[in-house]
Amino acid sequence: MSRIVFVLMMSLLVSLAFGQSQPESLPLMPMPARVQTGAGWLVIDSSFSVGTRGPNEQELQPALELFLNHLRRQMAMPPQDMKVSTNSPAQLVVHAEHGRKDVQELGEDESYSLEVTATGATLNAETPIGVMRGLETFLQLVQITPQGFVVPAVRIHDQPRFPWRGLMIDVGRHFIPLDVLKRNLDGMAALKLNVFHWHLSENQGFRVESKQFPKLQEMGSDGLYYTHAEVRELIEYARERGIRVVPEFDMPGHSTAWFVGYPELASAPGPYQIERKWGIFDPAMDPTEERTYKFLDKFIGEMAALFPDRYFHIGGDEVNGKQWDANPKIQAFRRAHGLKSNQDLQAYFNTRVQKIVSKHGKIMIGWDEVLRPDLPKDVVIQSWRGQDSLAAASKQGFRGLLSFGYYLDLMWPASRHYAVDPMSDNAANLAPEEKQRILGGEACMWSEYVSPENIDSRVWPRMAVIAERLWSAQDVQDVNSMYTRLDATSRWLDWLGLTHNSSYDPMLRRIAGSDRIKPLRTLADVVEPVKDYTREETAPVEPTSLLPLNRFVDATRPESETARRFGILVEAIASGKADDSARREAREWLVRWQNNDAALQPVEAQSFLLKEVVPLSHNLSQVSAIGLQALDSLQRGDRPGKEMVTTQLSTLQSAEQQRAQLLLMIVPSVRKLVEASAGETSSVH
Amino acid sequence: MSRIVFVLMMSLLVSLAFGQSQPESLPLMPMPARVQTGAGWLVIDSSFSVGTRGPNEQELQPALELFLNHLRRQMAMPPQDMKVSTNSPAQLVVHAEHGRKDVQELGEDESYSLEVTATGATLNAETPIGVMRGLETFLQLVQITPQGFVVPAVRIHDQPRFPWRGLMIDVGRHFIPLDVLKRNLDGMAALKLNVFHWHLSENQGFRVESKQFPKLQEMGSDGLYYTHAEVRELIEYARERGIRVVPEFDMPGHSTAWFVGYPELASAPGPYQIERKWGIFDPAMDPTEERTYKFLDKFIGEMAALFPDRYFHIGGDEVNGKQWDANPKIQAFRRAHGLKSNQDLQAYFNTRVQKIVSKHGKIMIGWDEVLRPDLPKDVVIQSWRGQDSLAAASKQGFRGLLSFGYYLDLMWPASRHYAVDPMSDNAANLAPEEKQRILGGEACMWSEYVSPENIDSRVWPRMAVIAERLWSAQDVQDVNSMYTRLDATSRWLDWLGLTHNSSYDPMLRRIAGSDRIKPLRTLADVVEPVKDYTREETAPVEPTSLLPLNRFVDATRPESETARRFGILVEAIASGKADDSARREAREWLVRWQNNDAALQPVEAQSFLLKEVVPLSHNLSQVSAIGLQALDSLQRGDRPGKEMVTTQLSTLQSAEQQRAQLLLMIVPSVRKLVEASAGETSSVH
Repeated sequence: MSRIVFVLMMSLLVSLAFGQSQPESLPLMPMPARVQTGAGWLVIDSSFSVGTRGPNEQELQPALELFLNHLRRQMAMPPQDMKVSTNSPAQLVVHAEHGRKDVQELGEDESYSLEVTATGATLNAETPIGVMRGLETFLQLVQITPQGFVVPAVRIHDQPRFPWRGLMIDVGRHFIPLDVLKRNLDGMAALKLNVFHWHLSENQGFRVESKQFPKLQEMGSDGLYYTHAEVRELIEYARERGIRVVPEFDMPGHSTAWFVGYPELASAPGPYQIERKWGIFDPAMDPTEERTYKFLDKFIGEMAALFPDRYFHIGGDEVNGKQWDANPKIQAFRRAHGLKSNQDLQAYFNTRVQKIVSKHGKIMIGWDEVLRPDLPKDVVIQSWRGQDSLAAASKQGFRGLLSFGYYLDLMWPASRHYAVDPMSDNAANLAPEEKQRILGGEACMWSEYVSPENIDSRVWPRMAVIAERLWSAQDVQDVNSMYTRLDATSRWLDWLGLTHNSSYDPMLRRIAGSDRIKPLRTLADVVEPVKDYTREETAPVEPTSLLPLNRFVDATRPESETARRFGILVEAIASGKADDSARREAREWLVRWQNNDAALQPVEAQSFLLKEVVPLSHNLSQVSAIGLQALDSLQRGDRPGKEMVTTQLSTLQSAEQQRAQLLLMIVPSVRKLVEASAGETSSVH
Repeated sequence: MSRIVFVLMMSLLVSLAFGQSQPESLPLMPMPARVQTGAGWLVIDSSFSVGTRGPNEQELQPALELFLNHLRRQMAMPPQDMKVSTNSPAQLVVHAEHGRKDVQELGEDESYSLEVTATGATLNAETPIGVMRGLETFLQLVQITPQGFVVPAVRIHDQPRFPWRGLMIDVGRHFIPLDVLKRNLDGMAALKLNVFHWHLSENQGFRVESKQFPKLQEMGSDGLYYTHAEVRELIEYARERGIRVVPEFDMPGHSTAWFVGYPELASAPGPYQIERKWGIFDPAMDPTEERTYKFLDKFIGEMAALFPDRYFHIGGDEVNGKQWDANPKIQAFRRAHGLKSNQDLQAYFNTRVQKIVSKHGKIMIGWDEVLRPDLPKDVVIQSWRGQDSLAAASKQGFRGLLSFGYYLDLMWPASRHYAVDPMSDNAANLAPEEKQRILGGEACMWSEYVSPENIDSRVWPRMAVIAERLWSAQDVQDVNSMYTRLDATSRWLDWLGLTHNSSYDPMLRRIAGSDRIKPLRTLADVVEPVKDYTREETAPVEPTSLLPLNRFVDATRPESETARRFGILVEAIASGKADDSARREAREWLVRWQNNDAALQPVEAQSFLLKEVVPLSHNLSQVSAIGLQALDSLQRGDRPGKEMVTTQLSTLQSAEQQRAQLLLMIVPSVRKLVEASAGETSSVH
């Protein structure tokens, strides 16, 4: 048999073994570009080894060790088991065509191919970063079966849709310690994200050591900042995971913390204090003084050396201009330079800063506000305004990143983030080369209401669906599949040490002051924090950075999985498609919720943190009672009186209002039941 | 009013405000020597501050910062809140009469007085270590109330019963990373333990870097060892918590890992490999060669410099003598030196080693076997044999530590450890000065079956009751009070990052391969791993250090809290003292358990790790069915037929046998129900 015929026959055999059957049944997130499932599986046990093929062995070593560490943790293998094999053949053979660059760049090839059969697996990629992505896919495929831990036979060809897939964490408003950032980087790597955007300065805190201007951290941080050594440690940690680190120093606004140590930078005389409240504040750098630029030149020079990434974020958002308006010298400057508005003045500032950034070898990024046609075209616009703003920037030749729709602090459900696509609205109509300029996006974790204790639960698991949106093909849109895989992903992230699941009960126990948290958890499971900026608007006392985040709203999750599942049951019932078991399950839930208030009352009486929860708990019982009545009517087939329905709907309307800054997420479903029982099926879809 | 009259009146007023009422209702563990509760409470909020009075301010600073960190974590306060006050008056004023020694010593004064009123608190101690102990008491007193976080008014005078209260962790058989040790040191400090005994070498691994003999760690550790820097880091971490670190290098036995790099130390020619199995092995150092002592002199010199504590543990246990018997040269040496037995030969070795240890400024500790009357009297005997052995040593003038009864790897319930007192048996009859020589005790965490993932659940919370036995007065014996306070302590330890609670569900989820672990947890909640050394005897495959610890037995807890509570219900029912609600609760449990097997079966079919659990789950249902029948009989007041009872008891006897190395802990209670239903109340007490 000639070699060619043999190869052809082999590839035919392999093709027969792999089909396109149900890749969505695999717990993969983000969904790879192409997945073919096969027959059989590769057993993973203590004899498992991973080895390299080709020239870049040395460079791949850290990634393979990291991979084995994760694999061992998933399976509880001792550290002596499962080796990186150097000479002997390995079960997983890894190959990278090229070596690694000293500093990871935007747009490096992240593609990989992974093929798993019953006898072994191969992972091929152009770059070590592609290998990292493929190893994460392999880890997600490991599952327990009657035969042991296995990876199912599969053939995957994968590459990202966008080259910039990021998470921004604001460590200014609340300081987030290095170890918390590290575990979030682990989560990012697991979801194939590749940019950590480190929002390092805010009115409420300046978080990096500056050796040039030590009063920045000494007076502007409450002692809560990262040393140079820590910054380097985090950058190296990120690099080992294929993640770039882009620093942001917000200017000329959002900069009160700078002025505590250096009031001469501001546009009004000091002294300044670290800001404790939230919002947009007046202090802004003085764009008319040369000393401002001298300071920034030295400062940016120092930071440009500390942060190796090519990109450097200068913020540039939300300058209200009040200090500029109030300063006659600045007004005179504006007139003298023909700057018609404060926007023009800020543009002047940005142009000066851009030159400094560029001089230090970096490319500038800024929020929407920095966009002016006369800026150099390499500037990147990060848009909190939306796809139209991005499209407009792209038409002017600027590259852009979408963050609108990806604000994790707004407490949206995963499905809503999932629906946001960087290429929608006006961006959908761009010419191909204009589309190229849309680099991807970044989720933003603004930190008014996050602490080291609950930040993971605000980022995860919802971050995973944004990661999928930015990595997977645009037509990966099935919300049911997404939620099924998200559930697996969320539990899987536990192995990385993320605390989004594990911190829930301890926080509830603190609030209850005891172990007996069952009724409290029943309530917590069906509520969500208020959305968008309602938390500001409904705050019982003015929130500050010094207030403890130990309230019920801080412990509850952004999205109620229980309410979502209940909603699916109700959809089926209201549309007449439910079976007995679905009706029984819905009833059991409602009965439990109806009885919950009585169970919770003794706990409520024990804790000052539960006082505000009393009306919410009461509402859950009342709403559930209404749901049970509607369910009864539906099952008996009789229609409730019109008056009764009116009363019920009015109670529901009231129960839909926030209590303790929380929303009772079963109300819309119960309304659906009431409407269905009243025969108003028009609203049921 | 004269000053004396005023002081008298004030102390009268304070006395009136404090009573002896129910100190056991406070969640304190170990119970302090003297507790008087008062009226009212001190509110702890963000304005709380702690300050020092007197000369040792600087030295107390780290302890106060650590205290505030814990307090902030308990209450979820931001790091900017709650300060160490330097000039202004503080709410908690701390005073230490003396400063701290460079190296913490055995027997330093750990007493403290803590007084809390509605307006403030004072903590007075002789030493900074006493202050640390008092601060831990303060933290345990913090509770949530309708008025906020408070500490109840209380007056406490406290000091330990024994000066040596330790935990030994064996990092030889399974390597335990530094961060895991650190969180266990946090737990130790919370329980006022003061010695971390670091068992650093074993047949299965040599765990410290030696610069003198680098092949020790290079060839004897699988790369799993602590560098000098890490050792120093841990010692400093312990010191900040008032904990001494005593290293143990086990010799002349338990030393195979040494011989991998240095076979010339052994009594038989090599080569040697790291031992993977468990047990007592033949290899032992050659006590007849001068090069052995030269090696040990250099090695102990190096380690004596690295570990500042005055005490140095040389192990000395379990030498089986086989290598010595087989070596003609060693036999000849024995004859030439008139050493009648291998015990005599080991005594010769110990005497030589003791001189080396002493030369390097240290006091030797060894296990029972090292005890020989001719050793210097400063040698300390650690007894795994028991109080009689301790008493004998004490009569010979040696000091001793009890570890018999405190072996955490034997999986005893807390109550059984709690009942072990160093001063019982022959030790109770010692003369006062002989009693003085019994320094205290140490719990031992031998690590055949612990990994970084489950070690916390093997140490905690049971360690806490041993800590109470060694700190509190001998007459603190109330088991109910102990379990109530242990429950609170266990949850409280979560805040220190210990994973004994949080690792439970993730381990069950790994085994189930899914989130749906409710029936698996129901089963896990009522079983316990087999006791003593039964795990060796019943092992399905020969256990080694390379086997993953991911079985059901590795995830379950040493003591079933559910079974214990069920036992209390059954006691009440069988003795006719139960009310309706107790009977209902017992019935609900039994029904749930009876139905559990059916719920678990679909999960069992998914995972190879659940195959061995099938019969255990089946037994739970069967046993529960018998319990329900007995409960029915008792409630109806009819007696079941004799044959039926015989069948039931025989089924229970079979169900009492281990399955999957686990015991079904409700069986004794169900037998009690059956016997009660049959009218055999004699066995009911």
